[in-house]
Amino acid sequence: MRHQIFRIASQKRSRDCILRPFFDNVTRSLSQNSSQSERPSFGVAFDIDGVILLGHTPVGGSPRALRRLYDDLGALKIPYVFLTNGGGFPESRRAAELSEILGINILPSQVIQGHSPFKQLVNRFENEFVIAVGKGEPAAVMTEYGFKNVLSIDEYSSYFDGIDPLTPYKMWTAREIGNGVKTERGDVVSKRVQAAFVLSDPVDWSRDIQVLCDVLRTGGLPGREMGDQPYIYFANDDLEYQANFPTERLGMAAFRIALEAIYNRIHCNPLVYTSYGKPNPLVFKNAEKVLGSLLHRDKPSHHIPEQFNTLYMVGDNPKVDIRGAQQAGAPWFSILTRTGVFKGKQNHQEFPADVVVDTVEEAVDFILRRENAPLTL
Amino acid sequence: MRHQIFRIASQKRSRDCILRPFFDNVTRSLSQNSSQSERPSFGVAFDIDGVILLGHTPVGGSPRALRRLYDDLGALKIPYVFLTNGGGFPESRRAAELSEILGINILPSQVIQGHSPFKQLVNRFENEFVIAVGKGEPAAVMTEYGFKNVLSIDEYSSYFDGIDPLTPYKMWTAREIGNGVKTERGDVVSKRVQAAFVLSDPVDWSRDIQVLCDVLRTGGLPGREMGDQPYIYFANDDLEYQANFPTERLGMAAFRIALEAIYNRIHCNPLVYTSYGKPNPLVFKNAEKVLGSLLHRDKPSHHIPEQFNTLYMVGDNPKVDIRGAQQAGAPWFSILTRTGVFKGKQNHQEFPADVVVDTVEEAVDFILRRENAPLTL
Repeated sequence: MRHQIFRIASQKRSRDCILRPFFDNVTRSLSQNSSQSERPSFGVAFDIDGVILLGHTPVGGSPRALRRLYDDLGALKIPYVFLTNGGGFPESRRAAELSEILGINILPSQVIQGHSPFKQLVNRFENEFVIAVGKGEPAAVMTEYGFKNVLSIDEYSSYFDGIDPLTPYKMWTAREIGNGVKTERGDVVSKRVQAAFVLSDPVDWSRDIQVLCDVLRTGGLPGREMGDQPYIYFANDDLEYQANFPTERLGMAAFRIALEAIYNRIHCNPLVYTSYGKPNPLVFKNAEKVLGSLLHRDKPSHHIPEQFNTLYMVGDNPKVDIRGAQQAGAPWFSILTRTGVFKGKQNHQEFPADVVVDTVEEAVDFILRRENAPLTL
Repeated sequence: MRHQIFRIASQKRSRDCILRPFFDNVTRSLSQNSSQSERPSFGVAFDIDGVILLGHTPVGGSPRALRRLYDDLGALKIPYVFLTNGGGFPESRRAAELSEILGINILPSQVIQGHSPFKQLVNRFENEFVIAVGKGEPAAVMTEYGFKNVLSIDEYSSYFDGIDPLTPYKMWTAREIGNGVKTERGDVVSKRVQAAFVLSDPVDWSRDIQVLCDVLRTGGLPGREMGDQPYIYFANDDLEYQANFPTERLGMAAFRIALEAIYNRIHCNPLVYTSYGKPNPLVFKNAEKVLGSLLHRDKPSHHIPEQFNTLYMVGDNPKVDIRGAQQAGAPWFSILTRTGVFKGKQNHQEFPADVVVDTVEEAVDFILRRENAPLTL
């Protein structure tokens, strides 16, 4: 962090002359807002992959673009969040990674991942036994959210001999084995699973589909008689996404479709599930709440009124980012970049954005211009 | 082998007295058949898992039961085959394993696996580039069948960087890496896949579904533009099977259902595929042909006429073995054992067998009695 603060400070000194009017303007606009029942005029939500980063590398001038949303002391002036369908790690860790890569001090509360809405389910499942599915550290994420009785499906499956006949053919390099303290086998196999949460792309599909079918059709007790289906939640519903291959790769929705097709074939009642992530309008509603709370840290978030004239969604994926902003409606305004999934010359035909630009830097230029803030630092 | 022949011989000496009349009888019946246009009266097809073996252990007195189908010199007198939906290894290797476990010299031609019918597709794809999918050594099997241009999906995928974004999370203990001679990358990625063959249960579902979708929707060139779907063949269509877990495990049909559901969602034309294995009547027709050829090694198999009064299917799975024999019709006669999937007191309700017995030994007793052969060795 020190290192990043130093970078911000050094940039500050060299840019004081041009920074000043910008932040005067912002301060003025905020003070005007104060007189208008504390109504900041706008906020921004940035998709990460294909907009801010490509892999772990900044793209489209993202560090410069983001610095323009801070004052000369490195304090946030324009409320913004990262709104991604990705996940698998706690927001705190993702924020630290982004801070390191972008050279900006990003708060965990500014990182909204596909599974972030699971926090709102803590009240319901806080002490219930639940399993967490997906690459990364899904159980660690759930624990950080406040779930007190969670196991990763990697660890959960390890307590059932023969639950996956293909195990002899598999050995994972990355397994989430919890805190290392192995629970008593009996304690686990006799404990009814109340819910399953898919936080990130599952890795071992054959085992995860088998174990989830076992859990879901037995009411949470694999190997036992049929029972009512426990809840299952998916962090996003992305069918395909752009990765480091010429054509898009299968995402979490593909896994859900596979699970659903098999489950509905072997079970009498169709699979009931809930999925989050963009383009789900609830995700944009939640982002609006978080953006508001960034300017009202002193107030409990549920007291924050609808308060933005405009919220900008800057994304690279028409089906997910632009479609989501459109479905969410006012005050959302969609900006499509060409640094990720979308590469078209014109606007996207099926889900046209309000504005199309090349990079996130151009997007921030546009926003600041439209909001009557200066174009350059 | 020597070891097994010795065992047969030693058993022979101790049982000459009671073996004699049995084999006299068989010889007489065969000579009668000779006078009746060489028509042996019956043959037997045994399922393996749950009938002959549980895992790698004989079950239901299978070694004793099978020895009664040989003469006192260890020569086959009653034509029989093993008819399994399993696979992943060449018939020659499976025959050697069975010979070792059962103490009987079993011929490769007596082992009919789910993928054995693929042999009949050699004429069509002998020199075409095809990929082989599933646990075990699918490419080795296809090569033994006569396919000259085949790669396992393990090896094929390894030539495409980034085709499976989950690769960093995976490391297989059992991968089929071909003959160790790595082909030039360019030679593979630019070669159009003409067909995919699923020989045994796929292990890495997420990668195999991704790569098969790539191959199938691009006309055999992953990462390229859309094209006509190449052929895809499945060795069996088992939705679930009994393994070492209280409830049944997902089989090859579950993988096919997952692939089909995803493919039909991302592609305009529905998946076209062919699946073999019991209960497919073609499998029983093929088994009849093989059984006939066991008594007519001197004649080319296509010259063998329909020649059995009765063919017995001895199986443990009503949905697969019994249903298959019923669908195949005459001369098939179904016998259901209680040593595997089926454990009911009465006959199976949906697919009732012609006869229900406890073990394969009782099944052979019944067959020999019904065919007027002696009951004991």
